[in-house]
Amino acid sequence: MFCWLSRLCRGLSTPTRRTTQLIWSSASRSLVLSSQRRIPELSSFVARTNTCGELRSSHLGQEVTLCGWIQFRRQNIFLVLRDFHGLVQVVIPQDESAASVKKILCEAPMESVVQVSGTVISRPPGQKNPKTEALRLQYRYLDLRSVQMQYNLRLRSQMVMKMREYLCNLHGFVDVETPTLFKRTPGGAKEFVIPSREPGKFYSLPQSPQQFKQLLMVGGLDRYFQVARCYRDEGSRPDRQPEFTQIDIEMSFVDQTGVQSLIEGLLQYSWPSDKDPVVVPFPSMPFAEALASYGTDKPDTRFGMKIVDISDMFRNTEIGFLQDALSKPQGTVKAICIRKGAKYFKRKDIESIRKFAADHFNEEVLPIFLKTNETWNSPVAKFIMEEQGLGLVKLLETQEEDVVLLTAGEHKKACSLMGKLRLECADLLEARGVVLRDPALFSFLWVVDFPLFLPKEENPQELESAHHPFTAPHPNDIHLLYTEPHKVRSQHYDLVLNGNEIGGGSIRIHNSEIQHYILATVLKEDVKLLSHLLQALDYGAPPHGGIALGLDRLMCLVTGAPSIRDVIAFPKSFRGHDLMSNAPDFIPPEELKPYHIQVSWPTDAETGKSSSNHPCLSES
Amino acid sequence: MFCWLSRLCRGLSTPTRRTTQLIWSSASRSLVLSSQRRIPELSSFVARTNTCGELRSSHLGQEVTLCGWIQFRRQNIFLVLRDFHGLVQVVIPQDESAASVKKILCEAPMESVVQVSGTVISRPPGQKNPKTEALRLQYRYLDLRSVQMQYNLRLRSQMVMKMREYLCNLHGFVDVETPTLFKRTPGGAKEFVIPSREPGKFYSLPQSPQQFKQLLMVGGLDRYFQVARCYRDEGSRPDRQPEFTQIDIEMSFVDQTGVQSLIEGLLQYSWPSDKDPVVVPFPSMPFAEALASYGTDKPDTRFGMKIVDISDMFRNTEIGFLQDALSKPQGTVKAICIRKGAKYFKRKDIESIRKFAADHFNEEVLPIFLKTNETWNSPVAKFIMEEQGLGLVKLLETQEEDVVLLTAGEHKKACSLMGKLRLECADLLEARGVVLRDPALFSFLWVVDFPLFLPKEENPQELESAHHPFTAPHPNDIHLLYTEPHKVRSQHYDLVLNGNEIGGGSIRIHNSEIQHYILATVLKEDVKLLSHLLQALDYGAPPHGGIALGLDRLMCLVTGAPSIRDVIAFPKSFRGHDLMSNAPDFIPPEELKPYHIQVSWPTDAETGKSSSNHPCLSES
Repeated sequence: MFCWLSRLCRGLSTPTRRTTQLIWSSASRSLVLSSQRRIPELSSFVARTNTCGELRSSHLGQEVTLCGWIQFRRQNIFLVLRDFHGLVQVVIPQDESAASVKKILCEAPMESVVQVSGTVISRPPGQKNPKTEALRLQYRYLDLRSVQMQYNLRLRSQMVMKMREYLCNLHGFVDVETPTLFKRTPGGAKEFVIPSREPGKFYSLPQSPQQFKQLLMVGGLDRYFQVARCYRDEGSRPDRQPEFTQIDIEMSFVDQTGVQSLIEGLLQYSWPSDKDPVVVPFPSMPFAEALASYGTDKPDTRFGMKIVDISDMFRNTEIGFLQDALSKPQGTVKAICIRKGAKYFKRKDIESIRKFAADHFNEEVLPIFLKTNETWNSPVAKFIMEEQGLGLVKLLETQEEDVVLLTAGEHKKACSLMGKLRLECADLLEARGVVLRDPALFSFLWVVDFPLFLPKEENPQELESAHHPFTAPHPNDIHLLYTEPHKVRSQHYDLVLNGNEIGGGSIRIHNSEIQHYILATVLKEDVKLLSHLLQALDYGAPPHGGIALGLDRLMCLVTGAPSIRDVIAFPKSFRGHDLMSNAPDFIPPEELKPYHIQVSWPTDAETGKSSSNHPCLSES
Repeated sequence: MFCWLSRLCRGLSTPTRRTTQLIWSSASRSLVLSSQRRIPELSSFVARTNTCGELRSSHLGQEVTLCGWIQFRRQNIFLVLRDFHGLVQVVIPQDESAASVKKILCEAPMESVVQVSGTVISRPPGQKNPKTEALRLQYRYLDLRSVQMQYNLRLRSQMVMKMREYLCNLHGFVDVETPTLFKRTPGGAKEFVIPSREPGKFYSLPQSPQQFKQLLMVGGLDRYFQVARCYRDEGSRPDRQPEFTQIDIEMSFVDQTGVQSLIEGLLQYSWPSDKDPVVVPFPSMPFAEALASYGTDKPDTRFGMKIVDISDMFRNTEIGFLQDALSKPQGTVKAICIRKGAKYFKRKDIESIRKFAADHFNEEVLPIFLKTNETWNSPVAKFIMEEQGLGLVKLLETQEEDVVLLTAGEHKKACSLMGKLRLECADLLEARGVVLRDPALFSFLWVVDFPLFLPKEENPQELESAHHPFTAPHPNDIHLLYTEPHKVRSQHYDLVLNGNEIGGGSIRIHNSEIQHYILATVLKEDVKLLSHLLQALDYGAPPHGGIALGLDRLMCLVTGAPSIRDVIAFPKSFRGHDLMSNAPDFIPPEELKPYHIQVSWPTDAETGKSSSNHPCLSES
């Protein structure tokens, strides 16, 4: 159970045990494919058919038996049953024939253990959201009483307190609060807006205190930190919160090494004493290597299975899609070796993997079984020449029962695909009982030397900032800024923990001319919107840099929680709702008047729904 | 100079040295009357005619001479001159005849001391706000370099850190972050709204985490604290900020004494070591006594000059307005005695005081000079009978050269007026050199036993909460709740420091039936809006209570800053503007589309201005 929880927490971007539809709709790292397999059989050998946390719309109409504790009871009409896995609402039968059942359920003291059997139905009308998690969020004050939530929130408080001691008391940082009613930043499409009492004028909730912390350095604060509330309006995205918290840090007269040492010390100092101590310094890896070997900018370095470039080996191949790929100037062939893959993988696993590659990357993946007795062999095995086979064995150090997955295409795309398959295969192996990643291991990694600019997706001729426009160019590449800006590396650094980005920062530009050049000439931004910052850099800005750690994600990894919602006292649902108070909610038009705004109600055609969608029309 | 600053800081609600218009337009505690007098003559005996912080629109066209340090210089066109009092912008002459002046000003290193003479002009076009403070806010990053701002922000950081140590490390409080994207509370007219991506639905920025902290107690967190960002949209109000910070605390299984002891310990522990230590316990005063003796719920107890009820003494008076007042059922006569008033006050001081009473309270104030050689005597002295005079001397302990101020009217109103005059007179005496309040003294006071409900101003037949609807009734008065609710005292307590409210809290209602009765029957609120809280109280809520300390105001008093803007890194102007970044600002209509809102531009008639008021129309 504990093991299972710690494994689930790796699939953070979708808390899969609560997913209602198991479809191949997401290219995200946590594939639903594997999550189906990742969940162990929790109801084998026992009286129950399901766990309390497991039921969803696909179970409607099924007869199930559940066991658990009575969490609470309401008006003798329903009770909530809890087990280690979650909560479920049980409707107490009200008809005469079930009087004895009703008596037991209504008289049992809270926390009694019961076994119930019945048919899974939709939630009664008026309780729209049929998800178990919705119930947890609606009755959050009860959920907070659980041992796990108490542990998570108390550990969070303690760890942040230790961080403050380290920064404030040991290293002289100044805790400065910065405004959250701010001005929309250029391109700030993800910033919530707040109407002011001046017609047409809006504040904006900032995504980070970036500008303020740089201004504090210009203001001579020297070392700033803040446990900062930040805001991002991304609509409905799983396991994201519209408001989140970051440990926000900025220092003057510092370089990249200095910031990294500070953070290593910070995590070491604040790390919970019941975990293995943090070992410093953290290893560092250039972005190019992370992409080439792990197919991502946030490698999970707890296990190997690295991507290997085998292009040279297949220059003379007869396999069509490899030929095609290598005939193009950017063509490469990439491989990963799955130890004991032939032993643990089933044919349909391989089929799923190939389908994923086809659906999401439009790429073929070729499985090769080397030195194996398996009869279901690679479809193109006969086309692999003996020397290629031997080469693979040598380069990938292949052993008995290993499987090699092979793909071809442009370097970045092929690496990205292999990186995703690498994680998929790791999940699959663990679901089959292989211990690949030690649940007690916290593997930190700095990823460095990112490109300063990237081609815009919609228009690759133009450049955009890889991170943000205040990032300083790498000192070795500064001469390229005016000639080949796309080749300039940055002084940005990401902190990665077990394959999750938990922080990012950079040395900033402190020279107003370089900042102006990048904004105006390279990025073609309207510099007027940032004139205050440019002006500030003109008045003697110290060299400075900083970082922000995502506190919610960090706590999620530290506690092994399945979702960031489990380390936040009152999280929003994935649609951004507060299910307890029912926020956001309608506001009478007269209360909007002081803000000089009115609602633009969508027409029926726009919503594709009936007009009863909003209260004004439904009342008519 | 230091003394002067510490005196200024008492007039917190309008930072008077920056007020442009000296008019009797406000009934607030810091009367402009006294602030005119409160500012000492800072330019006597020296070469300058004015200080840098002093110039305002009333000086336009005057020839002035200023002395100070060059704070910064921009494009050799202007420089900013700084002295202890503030900043002023100096336009560097560009014409040939002044070449030598230009040379000196442009070549002088920063921080050079210069003396400049010139004519006061409005700020050049494009820099709309001609106020000196606006310049400080616009170039905040430079202002932050000042010794005073560095001291204020660093002290704030250290003091908050000590508070955290006391709460977290010494007393087991859990630091829990609560949401700021919440639902509008009933009657939450001062809450900023945030449109969501769902048509017509809005979040709201909460004025405090009140509901959340109570829910945390229901959730078994036991002891919660947070340095919480709060929001209040009050439009333009001097020395208020739309976002502010409070030390927010809640405890389970606690009574009023427990919370008070916690806070006394907290302030004692975190108090700056360069100040006199905080003496605990703090004295306590019932609200009724505070009103009767000081005319306010936040008495400045650093000095006496208490209000005395002298109604009985004047039952047989021939003085008309006293007769009138006493003939009414609620009529009273109140007095304060100003020691040495006859020595320090001028005739026009007394005239100003009487005018203030007439303008703002529609009341007469009668000055009486007892045992004095002053020739300008009380206008009604002849009507004061000898025994009344002797009675006053006895009751007020009047001495040679004292002045007694006397008014009549309904108890609360008369006390309120006398309370304001008491503070006015204190300011006047200090402006005349009397040391009435020790600048090093921090005088804490608990004010307790507030009424639970107050008659609504617009409809005195109905009741509203004196503080908020979750405040528990006083245990001795609970029987009155169902019969005479207006007589019920509450378990609310305010913490007052030197005449400023710096905190407030209460024991809360933890019984859902009482909470429901108060909301529905007494306050006639829509209970549906708080159904989640009522429901939570139903599921086993511990007795609980808490408090919130206003951190900005507290730091302002601790540092002796003239305005809360001086203890906030990036404050808004009194109109709620960020003068550095120019927030709030216009947003293109297409960026409002995802939020389903549009701007309701006021018509010319509504604004009383030309239509060039907003960019859409001015472009047409």
